[in-house]
Amino acid sequence: MLPEQLFASTIVASWKQVIGRLTEPVAALTEEHLQRQIAPNKNRVIYIVGHLIAVNDRLFPLLGIGERLYPALDEVYLTNPDRKLPDPLSLADLKKAWSDVHERLTAAFDAFTPSQWLERHTAVSEEDFAKEPLRNRLAVVQSRTNHVSFHGGQLVLVK
Amino acid sequence: MLPEQLFASTIVASWKQVIGRLTEPVAALTEEHLQRQIAPNKNRVIYIVGHLIAVNDRLFPLLGIGERLYPALDEVYLTNPDRKLPDPLSLADLKKAWSDVHERLTAAFDAFTPSQWLERHTAVSEEDFAKEPLRNRLAVVQSRTNHVSFHGGQLVLVK
Repeated sequence: MLPEQLFASTIVASWKQVIGRLTEPVAALTEEHLQRQIAPNKNRVIYIVGHLIAVNDRLFPLLGIGERLYPALDEVYLTNPDRKLPDPLSLADLKKAWSDVHERLTAAFDAFTPSQWLERHTAVSEEDFAKEPLRNRLAVVQSRTNHVSFHGGQLVLVK
Repeated sequence: MLPEQLFASTIVASWKQVIGRLTEPVAALTEEHLQRQIAPNKNRVIYIVGHLIAVNDRLFPLLGIGERLYPALDEVYLTNPDRKLPDPLSLADLKKAWSDVHERLTAAFDAFTPSQWLERHTAVSEEDFAKEPLRNRLAVVQSRTNHVSFHGGQLVLVK
């Protein structure tokens, strides 16, 4: 493997590991569990799961790899705080949304060539990207991987 | 920049961003804040901060870049649960340990060439590494970056 292929593969492995750690816990969620708060007066589990789906779903347009699958989640789990709006998805549909978004993202990441990883994301202009080449797809996925870990650390507080 | 240099730079930027988000909160810690629990019956802030220092300090030998700075923290913040052993460092020394470890790690990461990132870490044998080239330094640092994010998500619960 070329160095840049090793870099790309290692990064995809990190994403898969972080998402993978949540796959079973999300699949095992119950209605009761979803409504628990991670700590007193903090977000419910369902808000965090919905928030991760919404934020990661936004990667499709941001990385230029397709249309969003669940744009309606933003209002409930991203632009508004927890408990402001009713939860729009059933337990089964929430789990399906988790799988849909992450399976499709992972397939896209597996297919990126090293040079495609280093292309700009769509929120940076060509002009800015010429000056700041680190504003690439890789940086976005690194950031989102850390974001999943961040909330993963909260979800483990609720057993 | 060569593709592998862009990969390496993007990864170091991600580490710096994750550590950087905690730098100010750690510097601002008070004795009272350190003793708070992130949630009822969960770890105290001081345990999590000590745990991150201990785990990241272990990167020096694991990456083959030097001796550990604070090996005595393992027993208190890694191999034993919170409140089993007395906290060994003063508030000022804990903050110093945080800075020491992360500044030296970051300097080492800045100095790695792309091919040095792809070298094996010391917990994998040469023989195994030949079969599994993704068990490299990069993978370890990715994993530790996510680990910091994981606990960062817990630390923000205590304001």
